[in-house]
Amino acid sequence: MTIQAQPRTDRRSFWAWGLFERDQPTEEQRTQHAKELSERLGQPVELPRLPRVDDLELRDPRVKVPGALASFCTTDAYERAYHSYGADRGKAIFREFPNPPDVVAHPTTEAELEAVMEWASDAGYATIPYGGGSSVVEGVTPPEGWPGIVTIDMDRFDRVLEIDETSRAARIQAGVFGPALEDQLRPHGYTLRHFPQSFTGSTLGGWIATRSGGHYATNHTHIDDFVESTRMLTPRGWWESRRLPGSGAGPSPDRMVIGSEGILGIISEAWMRIQVRPKFRATAGVTFPSWESSYEGTRKIVQAKLWPANLRLLDPDLARDGAGMDGTRALLIVGFESAEVPQAPFIRAAVNLAREAGGEIADEEIVVDNGDGKPTGRQGAVGAWRDTFIPKTTGLAAGLGMVSGTFETAITWDRWPEFDRTVRAEVQAALDEVCGGGTLNCRFTHVYPDGPAPYYTYAGMYRPGRSEQRQAAIKHAASEAILKAGGTITHHHAVGRQHRPWYDRQRPDLFADALRAAKLAVDPNGVLNPGVLIDP
Amino acid sequence: MTIQAQPRTDRRSFWAWGLFERDQPTEEQRTQHAKELSERLGQPVELPRLPRVDDLELRDPRVKVPGALASFCTTDAYERAYHSYGADRGKAIFREFPNPPDVVAHPTTEAELEAVMEWASDAGYATIPYGGGSSVVEGVTPPEGWPGIVTIDMDRFDRVLEIDETSRAARIQAGVFGPALEDQLRPHGYTLRHFPQSFTGSTLGGWIATRSGGHYATNHTHIDDFVESTRMLTPRGWWESRRLPGSGAGPSPDRMVIGSEGILGIISEAWMRIQVRPKFRATAGVTFPSWESSYEGTRKIVQAKLWPANLRLLDPDLARDGAGMDGTRALLIVGFESAEVPQAPFIRAAVNLAREAGGEIADEEIVVDNGDGKPTGRQGAVGAWRDTFIPKTTGLAAGLGMVSGTFETAITWDRWPEFDRTVRAEVQAALDEVCGGGTLNCRFTHVYPDGPAPYYTYAGMYRPGRSEQRQAAIKHAASEAILKAGGTITHHHAVGRQHRPWYDRQRPDLFADALRAAKLAVDPNGVLNPGVLIDP
Repeated sequence: MTIQAQPRTDRRSFWAWGLFERDQPTEEQRTQHAKELSERLGQPVELPRLPRVDDLELRDPRVKVPGALASFCTTDAYERAYHSYGADRGKAIFREFPNPPDVVAHPTTEAELEAVMEWASDAGYATIPYGGGSSVVEGVTPPEGWPGIVTIDMDRFDRVLEIDETSRAARIQAGVFGPALEDQLRPHGYTLRHFPQSFTGSTLGGWIATRSGGHYATNHTHIDDFVESTRMLTPRGWWESRRLPGSGAGPSPDRMVIGSEGILGIISEAWMRIQVRPKFRATAGVTFPSWESSYEGTRKIVQAKLWPANLRLLDPDLARDGAGMDGTRALLIVGFESAEVPQAPFIRAAVNLAREAGGEIADEEIVVDNGDGKPTGRQGAVGAWRDTFIPKTTGLAAGLGMVSGTFETAITWDRWPEFDRTVRAEVQAALDEVCGGGTLNCRFTHVYPDGPAPYYTYAGMYRPGRSEQRQAAIKHAASEAILKAGGTITHHHAVGRQHRPWYDRQRPDLFADALRAAKLAVDPNGVLNPGVLIDP
Repeated sequence: MTIQAQPRTDRRSFWAWGLFERDQPTEEQRTQHAKELSERLGQPVELPRLPRVDDLELRDPRVKVPGALASFCTTDAYERAYHSYGADRGKAIFREFPNPPDVVAHPTTEAELEAVMEWASDAGYATIPYGGGSSVVEGVTPPEGWPGIVTIDMDRFDRVLEIDETSRAARIQAGVFGPALEDQLRPHGYTLRHFPQSFTGSTLGGWIATRSGGHYATNHTHIDDFVESTRMLTPRGWWESRRLPGSGAGPSPDRMVIGSEGILGIISEAWMRIQVRPKFRATAGVTFPSWESSYEGTRKIVQAKLWPANLRLLDPDLARDGAGMDGTRALLIVGFESAEVPQAPFIRAAVNLAREAGGEIADEEIVVDNGDGKPTGRQGAVGAWRDTFIPKTTGLAAGLGMVSGTFETAITWDRWPEFDRTVRAEVQAALDEVCGGGTLNCRFTHVYPDGPAPYYTYAGMYRPGRSEQRQAAIKHAASEAILKAGGTITHHHAVGRQHRPWYDRQRPDLFADALRAAKLAVDPNGVLNPGVLIDP
């Protein structure tokens, strides 16, 4: 089946991640916002003037683009500024672009991709793959110390090329953003159903390269499980796996690509397992009298392998702030969905297990859509949470000095309660010390039979001045606590450059040696995304 | 929780895989069997005399065991003969052991494992990890051209060390055989529920190293999905991953260990996800009027993500031979199980999907055990198949020249019908040419939303004389057909040395380069299982 390309999207903001330029707040809106904030906080709030591309003083490009590549490579200031950062572009509003790429490529064909990679590799320029630029871990930030930096933005690889309806799989180009991908699958009745919070500003290739965590809270949680085969260009040529539903032939070639964060090659396309759009749904918001009392019910449901699509547990603070509850009870959102099978028996079984573990929900609050289009998941606490979850990045607060962020991990159930106590104590102590106080809440984004993937959100008390150092101090305390208590430095935000110190303590040393050797086998000059995952 | 070691098991036959010596057939039993066979076939059947250890003329050991290793290393003839082969020990009955290991080690501690690996690596001896020796692909057969061969048998690493009941995980030593593993979990109410056909003669470490396919026909099919963390000794030291329910920190270190077939290191133990023993079960045998008409119902069930534990589809010939049916209809065995949740709604949903696709079953033939211990899966065609599945290797036929075997693969649904036609035509042609005829049947052992894992069994017409060349010719034809038609050379039998020519055409060349480099990073002398997966 042949599918038409989508029209090009608008330009994205170079200083506020997640916004198109047309949606950027104005100077006036930001002034008003800062004024309100100042009044609420009872202290002055400094407002940096909005940056304009014309004002930027970027280092001159150190590299000349060969004529053969000129049609899709640029040294344009906007392009270099935009590609200087991922989602962590807090310095951009201060016009700080100390290490921009020298050249940004937008290859439109595999031949162009080959040409630019060959040129960059031969010349020994750091070569940075770029998708949506949603990295929160400096995964696409150019490294220092290279004579040239070439960022390869895959945004022109934005099409669903083929749909195999029998196998429910599609061949999809890696540079397609979430919404454009869904737009191309929807007319055929399909969906990838991979909805990370970055969905609107991230791409398939980025999801695969970073082991993105998606829509499904249980069972097939990471993008990993939906990859049927991959096609990746390395400096030594193409690495392409066979389309197979399963295989036992040696270590999986795809599992080396998945999570490689651009150090082995640039993914150009993948065969992905797709879903028929759900018709049957069921949702329940089960409450528990405390955070601690909610673990067992959650665990019982996932260990019973009912595999709900949604199984998100919110702590009492988050259930209050995000779902309109009273702050005393935890909320477990359970959701089932299917294109084929009515879901009532499944949700009843899950609710029964939750109730046996002390969860409360009235029967009439279990919402079941038996294919008649009854909306589920849009009422009450569940609906309130759904609205909160969809990110509304506005850029209003950029550069105002707020300290806030998230960190996430995974840990086995036996260690979880102590893990949570440790992490909360240490991060709260850091917030108190660095910000004079702050808040911290937690939810489970994904849940496994052997443990949860907790996701923490923190906000420090406001202090005037720039916030990078305070921000980094909180992140440092969180990372230390996670590692010490036995978790992973990331469940689905990737490693990039920022998580390196903790990742290096977590992964087996000999695995790092093996990965470094594997990288050099396909990237002999070591140009691809240097500093990510391993040292050059 | 501390767990007691099991008593040592008896010695295994060196000429008939899967038998303990106490269960070997006698010369008299074999003579009688050959006589009956000869009468049935109407032609003479040559019967090789049973080999005895004392008669073997093995090459003298070329290697002297250092004194420090003498307590757990041996050059005993039985040991060297037994460890000359995996399950493919067809030459053993003819006393052919052209390349036995020089030394067989049975380390009992990690310190001993370190000592023997250091010695072998430093000396440059081929070092072969050995578990149950169930490889059907020459995965543990010593390679030619080495000055010394040291086989490390992990059978003393046979204990479940720790059970984490909250997370449902256990720390298990890699050398434990299937039955001993289950014996140690059973008193605590747990089971790994990994039952490959080799179950009685294979080990946890072997399952992990070869990506063994197990009990579950859908969803979590390979051992891969049950590995929480691994501990592996390489010549450069230990490679150990963190216990994590999930992670997104770089390419999974475990996924490089899983399927590594002994070329990177020797797995000493792993944290494995375990199951509570099922209490609720439901089984149905749905029949279809033909092989071709049975695909859609099978596909619909797996694509609906009901995730039955059992979803085995038998072609009409196999349904006749293995399940007592009349040879005109295909049989789809559907089974659900759970420790927590009654399974009636699930099997009804699955049966409904099968019926919509032309499947037939009477309501009263759907057997549901709602925790009352009603036996399921033991009646009628389903029960007959169950009895057939459990292997009864007797050694009676060893060396009589029968040509029979299996091969297995996976393929996407869109290509499956044509794939099956191609493979059957080419293998039947080979059987006709090489054996003057023969039979071939197929079942699905595992099923994925995007395709089945078909498993073929063939038997050639009897011809007098040794069968290795005929056997190899059939296997060659099957492998060629699989590769040409787009499948994988193995879904769960591993690559070893036998599948190498086809594996080499299947996996990305650059992946092989990366894997070779990774291997040399941890095994600098290249001693570990040389020739498996990659060339030295």
